[in-house]
Amino acid sequence: MADIRYSSQDINAFDKDFRRNFINCLSGFKSLNLCGTISLASQSNLSLLNSVMHIGANPPLMGMIMRPHVVERHTIENIQQTGAYTINMVAASFYPAAHQASARYPRAVSEFEAVGLTPLFQAPHLAPYVAEAPIKIGLSFAERHEIQANATQLIVGKIEEVFIDETAVREDGFIDLLALKAMAGGGLDGYYQVQSLKRLAYAKPDQPPRPLSE
Amino acid sequence: MADIRYSSQDINAFDKDFRRNFINCLSGFKSLNLCGTISLASQSNLSLLNSVMHIGANPPLMGMIMRPHVVERHTIENIQQTGAYTINMVAASFYPAAHQASARYPRAVSEFEAVGLTPLFQAPHLAPYVAEAPIKIGLSFAERHEIQANATQLIVGKIEEVFIDETAVREDGFIDLLALKAMAGGGLDGYYQVQSLKRLAYAKPDQPPRPLSE
Repeated sequence: MADIRYSSQDINAFDKDFRRNFINCLSGFKSLNLCGTISLASQSNLSLLNSVMHIGANPPLMGMIMRPHVVERHTIENIQQTGAYTINMVAASFYPAAHQASARYPRAVSEFEAVGLTPLFQAPHLAPYVAEAPIKIGLSFAERHEIQANATQLIVGKIEEVFIDETAVREDGFIDLLALKAMAGGGLDGYYQVQSLKRLAYAKPDQPPRPLSE
Repeated sequence: MADIRYSSQDINAFDKDFRRNFINCLSGFKSLNLCGTISLASQSNLSLLNSVMHIGANPPLMGMIMRPHVVERHTIENIQQTGAYTINMVAASFYPAAHQASARYPRAVSEFEAVGLTPLFQAPHLAPYVAEAPIKIGLSFAERHEIQANATQLIVGKIEEVFIDETAVREDGFIDLLALKAMAGGGLDGYYQVQSLKRLAYAKPDQPPRPLSE
């Protein structure tokens, strides 16, 4: 492998689009989810997120990074108004429609309709789910943190309910993302399909790494 | 698809290990990186992270979620002491060793030696890189946020330098994670290999989704 070194001066001197692609790819694979919300005026909104993350299992919490630009601002505003949102996993069957939800539609347009995905309401949760998604999570807003360096937001929510195809849930609670045909993201526009899964046993200092015996 | 609904009451009633696996899988695919640090007493430390994320491209910033348990506490302490750390991408050739770095080794043990990975020092950056990693990023600590709900930490750092195999960097700055044989994570112990990449063009409201013409 022939490594090249980029200093922070080199990176600052990159062309703007080149730097955006390059830096966005450095963290590795990303989760791909759609965030569903609704305004108090009943306007549905859908945005594509590639930074949804696990925060805790007990209590069950998830986080997501949102940039203060127009697409995600509608989502943040709706979450502030209603306290409710949904996170819906992107699968191979509809990833182009999910990508299209990242376009900057005007406020009055529902991205559900514009991109051809189906809003699914499950009372009493206020925010719409994406019917096509193999995992659908209903959340209530918990806390918000602003990154001082660039005004990016970390939104943390509490998991209120989960809809999932039961056949993908293994006996120990592990969910097989390969079986759900979930996609992995890369950078701003990369969509990867996965082909194989290995699980490793809980790591202990006095034992070498070994496959999980399920 | 036959969806089943789990309410928050159902989730609270799950067996503890089942719940940990289940909730950890819900966000989707995860990045897999090793974080290298060193203490002021020159003790190297390595920990496995599955929540490294993009925060911004200009200035170049990355975030990582750390839980306040013993493995990651050593990492946080070292970052606080030196201000420096590295993020190193996990590849197929050494993912079992990377997993092993999540074991709870005592403070006096260097995980590099214990799991069989090679520390690489590149002055003036204080923290050690993982020589085997196809992407190696040197960072300086920028800010820290504590999630009130469970004391989990978000650490944000500024990218100071990047080492990468130049052949994986495309003309527009996109980095091909498939070419680097990077692995995607799932839950606490799942390691996925990817098989194919599709890129889509920048989404615009007045155009349907379409492949990127590179």
